[in-house]
Amino acid sequence: MKLLNNTIAKIGMPDAKIEKAALERLRNQARPAGSLGVLEPISARLAAIAGKIDVRLDRKIIVTCAGDHGVAAEGVSLFPAEVTAQMVYNFVHGGASVSVLARHAGADVRVADIGVDFDFEPELPIFHKKVRKGTGNLATGPAMSHKEAILSIEAGIAIVDELVAENRPDMIGTGDMGIGNTTPSTAIIAVFSGLPVADLTGRGTGIDDDGLKHKIHVIEKGIAVNRPDASDPVDVLAKVGGLEIGALGGLVIGAAAHGIPVVCDGLISTAGALIACELAPTALAYLFPSHRSEEIGHRFMHDRMGLDPLIDLGFRLGEGTGAAVAMRLLDAATRVLADIKTFEEAGIAAAGKTAKI
Amino acid sequence: MKLLNNTIAKIGMPDAKIEKAALERLRNQARPAGSLGVLEPISARLAAIAGKIDVRLDRKIIVTCAGDHGVAAEGVSLFPAEVTAQMVYNFVHGGASVSVLARHAGADVRVADIGVDFDFEPELPIFHKKVRKGTGNLATGPAMSHKEAILSIEAGIAIVDELVAENRPDMIGTGDMGIGNTTPSTAIIAVFSGLPVADLTGRGTGIDDDGLKHKIHVIEKGIAVNRPDASDPVDVLAKVGGLEIGALGGLVIGAAAHGIPVVCDGLISTAGALIACELAPTALAYLFPSHRSEEIGHRFMHDRMGLDPLIDLGFRLGEGTGAAVAMRLLDAATRVLADIKTFEEAGIAAAGKTAKI
Repeated sequence: MKLLNNTIAKIGMPDAKIEKAALERLRNQARPAGSLGVLEPISARLAAIAGKIDVRLDRKIIVTCAGDHGVAAEGVSLFPAEVTAQMVYNFVHGGASVSVLARHAGADVRVADIGVDFDFEPELPIFHKKVRKGTGNLATGPAMSHKEAILSIEAGIAIVDELVAENRPDMIGTGDMGIGNTTPSTAIIAVFSGLPVADLTGRGTGIDDDGLKHKIHVIEKGIAVNRPDASDPVDVLAKVGGLEIGALGGLVIGAAAHGIPVVCDGLISTAGALIACELAPTALAYLFPSHRSEEIGHRFMHDRMGLDPLIDLGFRLGEGTGAAVAMRLLDAATRVLADIKTFEEAGIAAAGKTAKI
Repeated sequence: MKLLNNTIAKIGMPDAKIEKAALERLRNQARPAGSLGVLEPISARLAAIAGKIDVRLDRKIIVTCAGDHGVAAEGVSLFPAEVTAQMVYNFVHGGASVSVLARHAGADVRVADIGVDFDFEPELPIFHKKVRKGTGNLATGPAMSHKEAILSIEAGIAIVDELVAENRPDMIGTGDMGIGNTTPSTAIIAVFSGLPVADLTGRGTGIDDDGLKHKIHVIEKGIAVNRPDASDPVDVLAKVGGLEIGALGGLVIGAAAHGIPVVCDGLISTAGALIACELAPTALAYLFPSHRSEEIGHRFMHDRMGLDPLIDLGFRLGEGTGAAVAMRLLDAATRVLADIKTFEEAGIAAAGKTAKI
């Protein structure tokens, strides 16, 4: 609890003067004002975080947090639970979807075991941060204790601290692995938003109509049984959340405390980010949602945070795949701000004025 | 006319067998089927075009075609017409928006003068393909003659031929520069779609409400005065089009004839692509729309071609900026197909099955 509170206390606001200077430079560039759309305010926000106009996002790390879910026993996923551990090996070997897309984005993938129901060998090059071996079945009781929820968030914070100690990242991406984890993520947004579970629940790995009905029922039951307190994010995480979801929240809080921008992936990562921002609203200033997932609950999370994702490519995969793809766009935004010449620099007539070549 | 007809005759269909094999590989990858959304069919289409699963888009060229517009005299843009020529120099010097975003995407920008109202020095490193110095004012008469329209398309074809002779590109992006050119582009989609001009017209460089009303009136007048024949794309181009728009169509036809995928930028580039695909529908198989512009007419162009753009970042700039950003995503799609391991390759349980680690 101390690590969490101390880290939240460290989060400051990005530099508003730099943001203003960035917006002015963007307006003076040799192109119609506003013509590079959402990349413009994003580039200004990145500048404010970095404290300079010429931002370089050279060192990018995607942290893919893994955990198992007792609720998988309810049959909410097409995949068996042991796939969580198998995918951890696939990440480590570089053959998974996020491995491929991160490589393409110039980012490294680091895997973290927060709660996989498997004993990884200690020499496996992952963050070994297991809080417990999988959550309890949220359909019948709390996913974890209040203390375990705090520990899962603190695991994410500790990972950022360790990454910074190693070699400070310029940007952190979030990603998840955990069979069954769209179920707790959907439960979390249902609790915070108060909206009907049926309006928020998607097909996850691709379950059919009957599977979807069952999943809605499982989530409704989990909320009814556990009665999470929407005004207490840790209670929500403990009762209907997940271990990797807590760590994903911790990554956001940790990154914000270190002044590092954080790119948030899909439904599960965003559930974690939501826990983080409910605990520490200032963290929002450091958060960049990457994509909008096919999972219907995702947009309600973005609505609640008041942030729009950059892309909608119909992804519904997780792992950090959307974060990886978006990282290139954030990179592009930094180049837009720093490298596009102003009218004056290029010797060109601005709108409404006449100039000679 | 001979070059145009011969080039259209050369366009073949991509390899359907490779596309099928690609889709099968995607289905077998260690992730939920379809979970990488639109990148999946795109990667299969790129494979079919390349004739192999492991596609490498190493050599990327964005061709930014420039031309002036007689209709600029009607005051349809915030910028004076001489900005077209000034921006050509800005492209050559690498300080323009497309220069910056192309550099970020690992693409080269090549500029083509198709009809700028300025005498560039012959040693300026651009494609010197001037058909004439700007179009006529389409509000009062045809933008150009039927013969000039053909020549403008053939200029685009010749550019692709020259690029291939130099060092075959793996992908070509399109881009435009021409003060006033959202007006002819909007006129083109208005003629093809038959929809009311008022429903299709956007603010271009950022004109106000009065400016927008005036622009709608100018386009309506241009169509009424010229009566372009919607069943004859060259007639449409000649009467209400633009010189760079013709060349942008030629780029699509030329790229398709060489079996090179072509990434189409915003409203003006897509107007050119529309001319190309109305002339040679098979060219559609090689076309990848990049982004959806803020210009309202753009979506009607995509609708007519039956192709969805990849991204919507609120761009309304042209130059090839959207194509540049999308090129990275197409690159990512090639890696998705070739590099993500299948369940079998990764030794992981597929959906509905149980497996041991």
